[in-house]
Amino acid sequence: MRQTQLFTKTRREAPSDEVAKNAQLLVRAGFVHKEIAGVYSYLPLGLRTLNKIVQIIREEMNAIGGQELVMTALQDKDLWSRTDRWDDAKVDNWFKTTFKSGGETGLGITHEEPLTRIMTDHISSYRDLPVYAYQFQNKFRNELRAKSGIMRGKEFMMKDLYSFSKDETEHAVFYAEAREAYKKVFERAGIGSRTYVTFASGGIFSEFSEEFQTVSDAGEDTIYIDEEKGIAINKEVYNDETINKLGLSKESLIEKKAIEAGNIFNLGTRFSDVLGLTYTDETGTKKPVVMGSYGIGPTRLMGIIVEALGDDKGLVWPIQVAPFTYHLVSLGHNGDEVSKAADALYDELTRKGVEVLYDDRDLRAGEKFAESDLLGMPYRIVVGRDGVATDQFEVVNRSTGDVVKKSRAEILAL
Amino acid sequence: MRQTQLFTKTRREAPSDEVAKNAQLLVRAGFVHKEIAGVYSYLPLGLRTLNKIVQIIREEMNAIGGQELVMTALQDKDLWSRTDRWDDAKVDNWFKTTFKSGGETGLGITHEEPLTRIMTDHISSYRDLPVYAYQFQNKFRNELRAKSGIMRGKEFMMKDLYSFSKDETEHAVFYAEAREAYKKVFERAGIGSRTYVTFASGGIFSEFSEEFQTVSDAGEDTIYIDEEKGIAINKEVYNDETINKLGLSKESLIEKKAIEAGNIFNLGTRFSDVLGLTYTDETGTKKPVVMGSYGIGPTRLMGIIVEALGDDKGLVWPIQVAPFTYHLVSLGHNGDEVSKAADALYDELTRKGVEVLYDDRDLRAGEKFAESDLLGMPYRIVVGRDGVATDQFEVVNRSTGDVVKKSRAEILAL
Repeated sequence: MRQTQLFTKTRREAPSDEVAKNAQLLVRAGFVHKEIAGVYSYLPLGLRTLNKIVQIIREEMNAIGGQELVMTALQDKDLWSRTDRWDDAKVDNWFKTTFKSGGETGLGITHEEPLTRIMTDHISSYRDLPVYAYQFQNKFRNELRAKSGIMRGKEFMMKDLYSFSKDETEHAVFYAEAREAYKKVFERAGIGSRTYVTFASGGIFSEFSEEFQTVSDAGEDTIYIDEEKGIAINKEVYNDETINKLGLSKESLIEKKAIEAGNIFNLGTRFSDVLGLTYTDETGTKKPVVMGSYGIGPTRLMGIIVEALGDDKGLVWPIQVAPFTYHLVSLGHNGDEVSKAADALYDELTRKGVEVLYDDRDLRAGEKFAESDLLGMPYRIVVGRDGVATDQFEVVNRSTGDVVKKSRAEILAL
Repeated sequence: MRQTQLFTKTRREAPSDEVAKNAQLLVRAGFVHKEIAGVYSYLPLGLRTLNKIVQIIREEMNAIGGQELVMTALQDKDLWSRTDRWDDAKVDNWFKTTFKSGGETGLGITHEEPLTRIMTDHISSYRDLPVYAYQFQNKFRNELRAKSGIMRGKEFMMKDLYSFSKDETEHAVFYAEAREAYKKVFERAGIGSRTYVTFASGGIFSEFSEEFQTVSDAGEDTIYIDEEKGIAINKEVYNDETINKLGLSKESLIEKKAIEAGNIFNLGTRFSDVLGLTYTDETGTKKPVVMGSYGIGPTRLMGIIVEALGDDKGLVWPIQVAPFTYHLVSLGHNGDEVSKAADALYDELTRKGVEVLYDDRDLRAGEKFAESDLLGMPYRIVVGRDGVATDQFEVVNRSTGDVVKKSRAEILAL
């Protein structure tokens, strides 16, 4: 895409009303726009990254048998009353509103209830199980504070997958598959090496839930990591009993700040019991369906990537989630030889299907480089007078700062 | 996809609480699930169709220079107060709610206000114009009645594009391009021949707005069509003056019921004036930006396709929006020769990238055919004992009912 065509502009200064690094950088770079505290629009570059994150997650969910659907924000009060999650005294972050046609509704904070009800229409026999269904959908949570940028929004995108299994054994097999799928997601999103399966409090149905925690100074959680085994314990269950149970030893655990990037939960029959989601087994006996839930917030994950990888010059995108792989920066002016060479390189790369953001504007080199650092594409290709003369162009790695020189032919073969 | 893997089941009976044909058929076929009156979830088959509609619209919007972004549902009360569209006395279909952190918010009914404000950060010079930006985003409208299924939901997906131009002349050029792009969308979605550019009341900024009206008995609007010229007049502006102005004659106009499938509006400087969206022109003069808005609801369009093409046996999908192009129906049982032949055909078609829904279940032929008609894929391929013996398989056109016989090689070459 030509930057002369891109409508967003960057800002030199961080917005004064943002404290989180992710929001400061994303707003400065024109990736997101703050509508209200904790509520962000995604502008073209931001949406490109968000869509790439979504696609990575979608592929990994499909690979473990997930079927995609999409549920609604508006929720049925009666349904949530049955599971005792409507009352503000029980769940304190609903946005509630009323229908002009009468009655209350609320904006979905999660979707166990509606999906369990949908499944009562479709699951009746052991032959119908297991089922894995997921969605990408905007959740609403009426948070009191909003100081984490897109990492904790009042309106944010969630990928929530729910599993429906015959029994604990069948459930356990999928639960383990989901864990591996999540590892692949974080690996592909560029934060695999700093993200740990972390044992946390489990709720009512199992001793532990599993979180995926990404090490970052911006983290709200404290975790204790066993680097060698690649697992961690959340502070909330960090005690001798847990350490022993997991076969770890206190000496090898390192305390770090971390951000929760995903979680997987055993739900047991909490929802199927109350909402009547049962099936008839091979012997004709009616049994409740065993459920699990598996969440990753794509918008939150985008924020975590910025927190973990961004530096003092700006955003740093891993290749698989970058809006564009290359930032082609022309130092030409007004259609001179350099501009023409840059135009030609852009056209050829684009024709080959390579994703290139092309800075074809007539600005000073220093300004262009500073903005290029801020936008954070993985590689910058500089087309200047020397490069055109010698057929040796600088290719700068945004993450490491390494510079290599490549010929036009080498760039086209990348 | 194998139907033994698809979690949704169909129903023999239409749900008693649905009056609209689109909702009756889509719920029966397991494409959508009603959460609350006027609020529908999209199940895997429904989501596939919705995504295809979205992709058609996206391609056509990109082709006329649209840049995709996505804004939020939660809206800033102060912003909407400035344009005088917050007060319930002025706009009567808001869902309003409150932040726990204090203050009111509402769920976006449309997005002129927030996008105009976003553009004040990015547009300042004539060099920044024109800009065309669009989104696919869920709108919320607190409708009193909900009897049109997914054609008029309280929560529904909208593609809304907004144009930002220097002056009326530049605006008019894009407006005409958008009209042509819309025609292409309806053509590709399979309802082009029954959809008419229809002149309707224009609001404050122009004499007429343009609607795209699709002829259907379920229509809420009445239009007067000139078949030869391919345009129509909405009843609301149907009078001698309009007829003359458009160069039509009363005698050639036919009255029909129709459903609004899209619309394009001149907004003039209504929003840019109030919200301060100005630019500096070539002479250094500050001017307000001239705007337009262009809407198509993908969920509504899906409902219109069902209303227009569905028959008494069920859904009828045009090829470009069908969840799958082929419905491969095996009449085999328990791994017999017929099942094996169907399995092999499914595998080969899928390997070739052909989209096939494969009914691999062990059910009676009559039941399978009835369900296949209900689901409405464009072509049904029947694999039975005779077909396997003679290498001549029935291929049934869902829309026309035409049956042709094709060999395995011919099917693979389709």
